Amino acid sequence: MIIVVKKGASREEVQEIVAKIEASGLKAHVSKGEERTIIGAIGDERKLNVTQLEALNGVEKVMPIVKPYKVASREFHPEDTIIAVEGVKIGGKELAIWGGPCSVESEEQVFAIAEAVKKAGVKLFRGSVYKPRTSPYDFQGMGDKGLKILKKVKDELGLVIETEVMDIRKVEIAAKYVDILRVGARNMQNFDLLKEVGKINKPVILKNGLSSTIKEFLMSAEYIMSEGNHKVILCERGIRTFETETRFTLDISAVPVLKSLTHLPIIVDPSHAAGRRDIIGALSKAAVAAGADGLLIEVHNAPEKAMCDGKQSVTTNDFPAMLEGIGKVAEAVGRTMPK
Amino acid sequence: MIIVVKKGASREEVQEIVAKIEASGLKAHVSKGEERTIIGAIGDERKLNVTQLEALNGVEKVMPIVKPYKVASREFHPEDTIIAVEGVKIGGKELAIWGGPCSVESEEQVFAIAEAVKKAGVKLFRGSVYKPRTSPYDFQGMGDKGLKILKKVKDELGLVIETEVMDIRKVEIAAKYVDILRVGARNMQNFDLLKEVGKINKPVILKNGLSSTIKEFLMSAEYIMSEGNHKVILCERGIRTFETETRFTLDISAVPVLKSLTHLPIIVDPSHAAGRRDIIGALSKAAVAAGADGLLIEVHNAPEKAMCDGKQSVTTNDFPAMLEGIGKVAEAVGRTMPK
Amino acid sequence: MIIVVKKGASREEVQEIVAKIEASGLKAHVSKGEERTIIGAIGDERKLNVTQLEALNGVEKVMPIVKPYKVASREFHPEDTIIAVEGVKIGGKELAIWGGPCSVESEEQVFAIAEAVKKAGVKLFRGSVYKPRTSPYDFQGMGDKGLKILKKVKDELGLVIETEVMDIRKVEIAAKYVDILRVGARNMQNFDLLKEVGKINKPVILKNGLSSTIKEFLMSAEYIMSEGNHKVILCERGIRTFETETRFTLDISAVPVLKSLTHLPIIVDPSHAAGRRDIIGALSKAAVAAGADGLLIEVHNAPEKAMCDGKQSVTTNDFPAMLEGIGKVAEAVGRTMPK
Amino acid sequence: MIIVVKKGASREEVQEIVAKIEASGLKAHVSKGEERTIIGAIGDERKLNVTQLEALNGVEKVMPIVKPYKVASREFHPEDTIIAVEGVKIGGKELAIWGGPCSVESEEQVFAIAEAVKKAGVKLFRGSVYKPRTSPYDFQGMGDKGLKILKKVKDELGLVIETEVMDIRKVEIAAKYVDILRVGARNMQNFDLLKEVGKINKPVILKNGLSSTIKEFLMSAEYIMSEGNHKVILCERGIRTFETETRFTLDISAVPVLKSLTHLPIIVDPSHAAGRRDIIGALSKAAVAAGADGLLIEVHNAPEKAMCDGKQSVTTNDFPAMLEGIGKVAEAVGRTMPK
Repeated sequence: MIIVVKKGASREEVQEIVAKIEASGLKAHVSKGEERTIIGAIGDERKLNVTQLEALNGVEKVMPIVKPYKVASREFHPEDTIIAVEGVKIGGKELAIWGGPCSVESEEQVFAIAEAVKKAGVKLFRGSVYKPRTSPYDFQGMGDKGLKILKKVKDELGLVIETEVMDIRKVEIAAKYVDILRVGARNMQNFDLLKEVGKINKPVILKNGLSSTIKEFLMSAEYIMSEGNHKVILCERGIRTFETETRFTLDISAVPVLKSLTHLPIIVDPSHAAGRRDIIGALSKAAVAAGADGLLIEVHNAPEKAMCDGKQSVTTNDFPAMLEGIGKVAEAVGRTMPK
Repeated sequence: MIIVVKKGASREEVQEIVAKIEASGLKAHVSKGEERTIIGAIGDERKLNVTQLEALNGVEKVMPIVKPYKVASREFHPEDTIIAVEGVKIGGKELAIWGGPCSVESEEQVFAIAEAVKKAGVKLFRGSVYKPRTSPYDFQGMGDKGLKILKKVKDELGLVIETEVMDIRKVEIAAKYVDILRVGARNMQNFDLLKEVGKINKPVILKNGLSSTIKEFLMSAEYIMSEGNHKVILCERGIRTFETETRFTLDISAVPVLKSLTHLPIIVDPSHAAGRRDIIGALSKAAVAAGADGLLIEVHNAPEKAMCDGKQSVTTNDFPAMLEGIGKVAEAVGRTMPK
Repeated sequence: MIIVVKKGASREEVQEIVAKIEASGLKAHVSKGEERTIIGAIGDERKLNVTQLEALNGVEKVMPIVKPYKVASREFHPEDTIIAVEGVKIGGKELAIWGGPCSVESEEQVFAIAEAVKKAGVKLFRGSVYKPRTSPYDFQGMGDKGLKILKKVKDELGLVIETEVMDIRKVEIAAKYVDILRVGARNMQNFDLLKEVGKINKPVILKNGLSSTIKEFLMSAEYIMSEGNHKVILCERGIRTFETETRFTLDISAVPVLKSLTHLPIIVDPSHAAGRRDIIGALSKAAVAAGADGLLIEVHNAPEKAMCDGKQSVTTNDFPAMLEGIGKVAEAVGRTMPK
Repeated sequence: MIIVVKKGASREEVQEIVAKIEASGLKAHVSKGEERTIIGAIGDERKLNVTQLEALNGVEKVMPIVKPYKVASREFHPEDTIIAVEGVKIGGKELAIWGGPCSVESEEQVFAIAEAVKKAGVKLFRGSVYKPRTSPYDFQGMGDKGLKILKKVKDELGLVIETEVMDIRKVEIAAKYVDILRVGARNMQNFDLLKEVGKINKPVILKNGLSSTIKEFLMSAEYIMSEGNHKVILCERGIRTFETETRFTLDISAVPVLKSLTHLPIIVDPSHAAGRRDIIGALSKAAVAAGADGLLIEVHNAPEKAMCDGKQSVTTNDFPAMLEGIGKVAEAVGRTMPK
């Protein structure tokens, strides 16, 4: 860690900084430059209390050198992590493709969609039963009843099931019924929830926050992993920008950047990023071309009757052709499609 | 609600939109313009399912006319809401000033600070026992033990106490020990938590999310209020921008804008907005000048030993003079200071 | 255009709005809803003075229906525009690939790079002679002398040349020496410059502003086109977001969204978006997969000696393999590479 | 400057970095930490070519220690700069208040407003004759003819005049007719324009860019000053954020932060920041409370007939009472109003 000393700081103030560094077991190397004195803290910088250093009067700026996440980092674990769940591998050569409705609305609806996505070759099924809605007056999801419908889909169609958890008290029951849990964008920094899903032994899809940075995203993965659950799948789902033509802005660069920083699988949710179905095919192809390990796509049999997100749902009719287009790009970059 | 029809939409597609509007009990008024057909939905637009309308093929854009929040709006309740808690009034002529440390660290620390802020005339004490930290390796707060220390401060010094709740399972115990609960920025859209604090009968400070809009902020207040708890205090605590000289950017305009849209009290947290103590006085004066009903200020007796946020904590030494400066501005805008 | 009337507006205030609409030759249709009165302005809404309407006391909000750009819009000109320049077609099936250094530094440097990119099959050469630098103390470009070097590259190697213009007084001389002019991100709303390049008869690459919206981007294209020059090539070069791992954030969604809104060719500059060479290949493939008509790539023979942007320049050594990878994706989406 | 070396970099790569530093006349201090090697460059870091350092293969990150602006910095010039123009002092105890219309529309309009603002005690008059408009179809300003009207206002009423320049070719004529030039937000990084206004001997108001940082803002001031013109007045006019209730978001923290970093006067434009007249009084008071040296306010006699920005113009009727309110806050913070 580098500490830049304020111009005109007294000898005592410099000494205070040195003492604080040494108190944590690191060595301090003071270097007087032409315009600023800087102090290098040599040793394991994670032991330093940045907060307390920053609060010292003589400190202008504290600049960390080392990344704050560890278990999630590629330095710690150089090879790609492949997560196997019910026979499906996520993070390998074969792309992991999820299809399914925004929310579970009824058994008929869920089965109609599940059968269609299965026919299209998809092995992973998505569907929310607890819904984070901006308005308290909007449909809040089917709740626990929906979990049973999802379980039935698994039992009868053999699809691997994922669903979102929001309320920490629902982690246990959700983990009982489904194969993969999802932590949504609005909960990326719901730290108690992260700790809770860190205690279960099922894969967790973690979505980036609406305006979070990649570093914060990886710190949230670290939260889950630090509790023991290393099966974290990172999902880029768009960030908030000034653009209004799309609901959010897909941060496509996050895919290769994350690939360089972490060993965890990276998937992309083009549906929430776009918020409109006409560009989901284009974004899916871009995601695969950029190196994503999978796609989380909203599919609906009757979007105009969907309780939410109908505008951004691909129809079950259009889905197979879309997958075909994605398949060609997958092949161009050395990946395969599920079948 | 206004629905703009896509150029070239068929008669059937227009008819589908009309039918969807009428099915919700509203009237549809179709108007063919030179370049676009638009449809006005006349009646209570909150009954319309925007999601399903947007998902129709013929729809280009859906434009709501009415604000989505109701109980929180000034239209619904024109007079300012004044919240009384343990003899202190929040939202009236007298400014509500909170002082206290970022986090509860020990009984000595808390009492040292509490005595200092009380001496400075402050009646409201802040202090967190559960801490939302970006890193799992950082200090996570004293937890339940801290609540007892806070209660002791109340009992011995007569200060009104507030603290943050993050974990939904802690709402009950926190509400037992303290007078005011706080929902932090990262939980502004933790809807299950909002519902839970909506069920208790104590004032709740709701902070805006890091990149939320005013409309979303008010929708979150509406979540709490829709459960029955109308004692919501809105707190502007800065938003994320591209600026790096400050930790966040205080959105000062939010104060007068919120005043026009809602009847709830509005306070400002200059400490988290700034992230640096040297400008907290300036921001506090600006907040009061802009019409804020109060200030939530981090005060510490030894910032360089604080477990968090030391950099942005005003020292107990500097606090009285800072309040004096704020007091002059308060007087200039017709407000009074607590004493 | 829809005008939402303020709650409680007087009859006179409503009448004032109606009068203002009718004074512009449109018809006003007043509709009283349960919570708001709204007024539809029927006719050519571009004739309305939004500014004056918004300034009326009775007006809460003005909502335009029609897009503010016309000549640039796909509604006005449904087929894709293909721009031919010196035998190269931009916007057709064959991708338009530019290679070249950030800035022209010397004849040797330029020729070394130009020969390498030509050998890799590229027909379009980029290189700046006037440099927009954040600091007045940084290298400001070779100026007019550089134009002659670029011309020599064209004459001797047959490459089509483009360069940036910043100073309105340099448009004439630049247009004399090079084939394509570029307006950079920081000048996207330098309206006098836009008008000036709108008067010449050469293609203009227009880059989006650092935090502009797609609508503003198209309005800037409209500025150029409204002066008579319809040869505008839109270039997505990244937008500013909170992310710091990349210099800017490539807005990949802008590609399919622009394709739906405008007939103009869309290219992508992955170099400026990324600011780091290791992900330029991934972003290039994503851009092509998303439907971009071309790529503007910074290539340098010795990035560590470049006067600017060395960090984001692909080396002449790595360039051919990168193009090969892009070529495979191009084929997967039905496009061809130049050769 | 601190250079962080990539993990696993070879000895040759480290040597290359050292050599590059030494070639610029600085000393390199290599320090091997547990996880990273870091290199300190000791000497005048402004001599280092950051670009070339960043482009080296062994470099992970380059961290500058020293601020990139010099003449504009308070370190270089510790006392506040006071700019005198036609007998008015900007940056002193007395606040500098500008009043006037967004744009010059006619002699009658300008005189009606100028007389009103003069009567309210204001000495500085604002008004644009060249208008930066998002659409080519909107009113583009009166042009040179407007300059003569402004000059007449000065001659007859004794007001000090300012106006915006956008086109570099208009700097000369504008400087001939008016007392203060303004560079607008969209031109903050129009570097050729900055250089040009740096060559004249009249005060220049420089507005921050829509999404610029404070550092970039000061670098643009440095551009002007590096050409010789030190009479730069910084104007905070709002930044783009996700909020839609206001046109931009006033960055109130910029006022005290700029005060700490630079000696130049800081003024605030609440009109453009807000985009709506009802909160301009609140923002003006906040600006003065936060330490601003002045205010640039749009005032109009008939906003509903204004050619632009009517919605955000204070009426000449309301202006005197607004100034009175501001005056009380000014007094509370030790400032005086013009009279």
